[in-house]
Amino acid sequence: MSHHARPQLQLALDHTRLDAALEAANHLHEHVDIVEAGTILCFGSGVEAVRQLRQRLPEKTLVADFKVADAGSTLAELAFEAGASWMTVICAAPLATFASAHEVAQRYQGEIQIELFGHWTMEDARNWRALGLKQAIYHRGRDAQAQGQRWSQQDLDAMKALSDLGFGLSVTGGITPQELPQFKEIDVRAFIVGRALTESADGLRTAAEFHQAIDRIWGI
Amino acid sequence: MSHHARPQLQLALDHTRLDAALEAANHLHEHVDIVEAGTILCFGSGVEAVRQLRQRLPEKTLVADFKVADAGSTLAELAFEAGASWMTVICAAPLATFASAHEVAQRYQGEIQIELFGHWTMEDARNWRALGLKQAIYHRGRDAQAQGQRWSQQDLDAMKALSDLGFGLSVTGGITPQELPQFKEIDVRAFIVGRALTESADGLRTAAEFHQAIDRIWGI
Repeated sequence: MSHHARPQLQLALDHTRLDAALEAANHLHEHVDIVEAGTILCFGSGVEAVRQLRQRLPEKTLVADFKVADAGSTLAELAFEAGASWMTVICAAPLATFASAHEVAQRYQGEIQIELFGHWTMEDARNWRALGLKQAIYHRGRDAQAQGQRWSQQDLDAMKALSDLGFGLSVTGGITPQELPQFKEIDVRAFIVGRALTESADGLRTAAEFHQAIDRIWGI
Repeated sequence: MSHHARPQLQLALDHTRLDAALEAANHLHEHVDIVEAGTILCFGSGVEAVRQLRQRLPEKTLVADFKVADAGSTLAELAFEAGASWMTVICAAPLATFASAHEVAQRYQGEIQIELFGHWTMEDARNWRALGLKQAIYHRGRDAQAQGQRWSQQDLDAMKALSDLGFGLSVTGGITPQELPQFKEIDVRAFIVGRALTESADGLRTAAEFHQAIDRIWGI
């Protein structure tokens, strides 16, 4: 059993159509801790997707996965005003974008999540912490994953280093319940799961398998 | 006079409301070469913004500024099916994302533009060229710009290096007509201008000043 807090389960809704996303949310929301309006959904239907998920799920932690690279305060205003709890900003964004998004987030009692893609450095990570940011998302990209790229020791070491800096990590990219023991030394805030829940013949059973694996590794 | 082709003028529509964006497009489209559905507009109204701009401007080069980081083929399908000519992918995206977005773009006779933000390397640039990509966007971020960050020699050197590799560059970030001479050694495909056109008291006059400066430097 790890000394870290119990990770949560996050449902990523990456439908292009809002009606399909709302149907999946309706079916699955009681079986997950966090619901995410994925980037695909947000471009498909705009911020209306965030607004309608918030109306239907007034108490749920709700993520707007905008992967903001610029215009931090305008996009944060758009996301949080519509009811997002957290909004993602991509690591390639200038520090000024993180600062302006964070400022808006705080006004709404929301949080910014740093989405890690491509090149970033531990110096970046220290700068993000210095701004007051506390959450990062570690990604095995869906295209990289489709090419068969696995979780590597390098991935796990980077997650551990971020975790040691004080970041709570959300982990995503084709994760299965069987893979969870790899993450037991890391402060995982959430496992983000999309198609394994929404495109599975039995998403509720998959959700239950995640919860069982989390209970087994991190304790009930 | 430079030996490069004459740069074009691109109007970036970064309104959160679609009606305001369509009004600006209606007012300005005859005075620009390219129209862009900005990231803010695309999150505000979804891909419907691209669709409505295409309906109103059937012949115009139209950019969907999605800054894609993942799910390249799904997002490219969304953008090009709605009528985009070009779609942006952020430099932090995995090469697999560029490849899948490029494949969809080609099916629609569209193009992918690489949006340069944060850390990237000349090795990345060579990999992008090897995939067949020909356009990159060089950015002075709007938040960085709000903090007073100027075009530096480092920026200009990086643009020159990309230009020498064969990339046509679009340049953006609070550019004024007075700044254009700095770019005369670079293969600038377009200058992207947003608020200077849409929030100016006289956007038509600002557009004319850009065209005059371009004529003066690159020839008519």
